[in-house]
Formats: sequence, structure tokens, C-alpha cells
Amino acid sequence: MVKAVIFDVFGTCVDWRTSVAREVSAFLPHVDPVAFAVAWRAEYDPAMERIRSGGRGYVPLDDLHRENLDRVLDQFEVDCADPEGLNTAWEKLEPWSDVVSGLTTLKHHMIIAPCSNGSIALMARLAKYANLPWDCILGAEIARDYKPMASVYQQSVQALRLEPSEVVMVAAHNDDLFAARKAGLMTAFVPRPTEHGPGQNNDLKPEAEWDWIAQDFEELAKQLRPK
Amino acid sequence: MVKAVIFDVFGTCVDWRTSVAREVSAFLPHVDPVAFAVAWRAEYDPAMERIRSGGRGYVPLDDLHRENLDRVLDQFEVDCADPEGLNTAWEKLEPWSDVVSGLTTLKHHMIIAPCSNGSIALMARLAKYANLPWDCILGAEIARDYKPMASVYQQSVQALRLEPSEVVMVAAHNDDLFAARKAGLMTAFVPRPTEHGPGQNNDLKPEAEWDWIAQDFEELAKQLRPK
Repeated sequence: MVKAVIFDVFGTCVDWRTSVAREVSAFLPHVDPVAFAVAWRAEYDPAMERIRSGGRGYVPLDDLHRENLDRVLDQFEVDCADPEGLNTAWEKLEPWSDVVSGLTTLKHHMIIAPCSNGSIALMARLAKYANLPWDCILGAEIARDYKPMASVYQQSVQALRLEPSEVVMVAAHNDDLFAARKAGLMTAFVPRPTEHGPGQNNDLKPEAEWDWIAQDFEELAKQLRPK
Repeated sequence: MVKAVIFDVFGTCVDWRTSVAREVSAFLPHVDPVAFAVAWRAEYDPAMERIRSGGRGYVPLDDLHRENLDRVLDQFEVDCADPEGLNTAWEKLEPWSDVVSGLTTLKHHMIIAPCSNGSIALMARLAKYANLPWDCILGAEIARDYKPMASVYQQSVQALRLEPSEVVMVAAHNDDLFAARKAGLMTAFVPRPTEHGPGQNNDLKPEAEWDWIAQDFEELAKQLRPK
């Protein structure tokens, strides 16, 4: 029986690409905003990998985003008058159109929470911006490590005082679900075929027999509704 | 400028005494439910003190409540068929009548979160029961220690990526506010003169010049509203 549903956020709940590009165009009027947003996001995984591999202690994603911003500004050979302001772009991401209604339905029946690599502060501010009605915030900061490390899923489940088999991980990314399944959680795939823009060629389809597969969060809420 | 408001919960937001008594009368029809609730709560501080003093590692409050329940059952010389069920009484506490409306108003202007000794799981379930619209859950589990240890306030502020001077601690208990002020936070007192029943003789009044003093959460929300 499902007692909680936890969610990947960047890409799965919110459209980071067009939202960050919108902020970039406000702060840096002379760069290609989508190219800049994509380059910024490309620094995300390498920055976390240094922490996952033990080469660096836990640093919240807000600080990694800020460091990565400096790299991308260098790469684009552009100055930013207010890099701290631009860094808050990650707190102002638009939810996909089905997200708030789907989460609101699910919240009537079970605990819902992000299991993201974003910090508590970042997830709280993003939830306020995007009206995401979380019951609590789980994920990287609880575990002081980054997905797809097993401890992030396991400690999120533990913080709810549940068993992994009572919790569903929802993501638009097959890799996230492979890691969650390995940690003992149930899994649900919701495709986000335009997360990476019109030419996206990864994560268009489920790559395993996930426990639930839904076109969007409203369909997922119907599938997970207690009988 | 106030950017976040964090709250004591047991007593300040919710009426634990009559709510726990209600659950006790359902599970233990032959005991005095209020006396039992009060005796259960009396074990709260000594149980945390063993952890604060370093005699025991961090144990979530749910487990302390469960251990304390066994002591109180012994004390009342009564058996409970479902002690795990009775232990969830602490997830089913009624909010004072001004709490949901006051929090809802505050939430429009700033981050609101519990800074309680309750665990993330306990606070999330209680919020669902009592409709407390928190943005995130801070407090003991974040710091793996118990109030009034300074680290609980400090790490709650840190998790929001704010300065202590940007955060207000709200409590009906002067001791909680003395500790929060010592940790650098701003303070607000809201009296709950019937938390301990009709004969209450402590915390009826502010015992220092707290930064804000309000009769209830609706008045507090008016006082804290940005000009």
C-alpha cells in the first residue's frame, strides 16, 4: 500500500529550461538565453559528482549553482552585474501544467514530498513560487549527499518513518528510477518530452517495467488513488 | 526585515492536552484521560534531556513518546492493546482556532515553518491532520538535537539560508524565546493560557520585551505584515 509519493523536481515537476532562460534574458540581455540555461545545467552533474565521489563534503545546490554560474559566465565571456540575483532563477521555475492539480489530488490521500537534489531552502522557495503543495521537504539535504546515491532515497524514506516498499519515487528520468528501485522504493515514470527542448532524444520512454507509468501527474493521481 | 517565521508547535499551534486526552479515552476507556495525557507529557522533557546532555544519541520524538507511553501505562497500572496506535495521538492534535487563518496570511508574505522538537514525520502528519500550511519542516530532526539547544534554532535558520536576525521564533513559552534570542533570532510571544488547563499558572504573560507580542496568530500576522 502506497503511503507516500516522492518526486524528482527539476524536469519532472518544473520546466527549468525555459524558466531559467527567461531569467537569463532579464539579467544578460546580450546572450542566447536558452544556450546559457543549457550550459548552466550542464555543469550540474559534474559539480555533484565531486561530492558523490567523496572529493568534497556536502555543499548545498544553491552554492553549486552559484559556482557553476561563474564558469558559464566565463564560457560565454560575459559579465553579470548581479550574479546572486540571477542565481535565484532556480527558485522561479514554472511547473508543467498538470503538476499543481495532480499533486493537490495526491495530497488528499498520501504524503507528498520532493526528493530532489535541491536544498531545503531552494525547494521551499520554489514551492512558494510554483504553488507546489508539499507536506515536507526530503532529498539531498536530509542525506547530505546527491542522487543517485542510495542514501538520498533511503534517508528520505526513513525521515517519513516508512518502509521503502511503501514509498513511490516519481521521475521523468529513467536513471533516477533505476537508483530508487535499487534502494527498494516503488517507481513511477512520467515522461517530459520537452524538458530538453524540441530535439530531445533521451527519456522519451520508460526503459524498464516501472510500477506505474502515466502521461502526466493527473493520470498518476488517478492510478495511485486508493481503491 | 522578516523573511521567515518559525514556530513552536506543541502548545503554541496545537492543543495537545485535550487532543491527546481524546485519543486516550478511545484507547483506554478506564483511565482519567486528561491525567493520563498530562502524565505522558510530563515524561517529554526528561526524555529529551538525556539526549541534550549527551547521554544518548539523537532519537526521534516519535520513539521517545512510545517509550514514555510504556512508563505511563505502568504508572497507571493499565494495559493497552494497541500502544502503536495510541502513540499516533501526537499526530492528531487540534490547532487553536486562530492558527490556520493566521498561518495562511503569514504564508503570503514570508516562509513559515515549524521549529519543534517533533520529527519530520510527526510534523508532516500533524500538518496534514490540522491543515497547517508549512512551507517546509525545520527543528529537532534537522539539527539532530532538542530545543532549547542553540543548534536547533541555528540550523533551522541555516537550512533557510538566512541570517538569524531575519527569522522570528514564535512560541507560547518564554523559555523557548529566551533560547531563540540567545541564538540571535527575533522573538514573538503568543500566550496560550489554557494549554495546561484551567489552572495554568505559567507562561500567562511575556517575561521579557519580546520583539512582538500578540494575542493570537491573526494579530501576529497583522503585526508582521510587510508595510
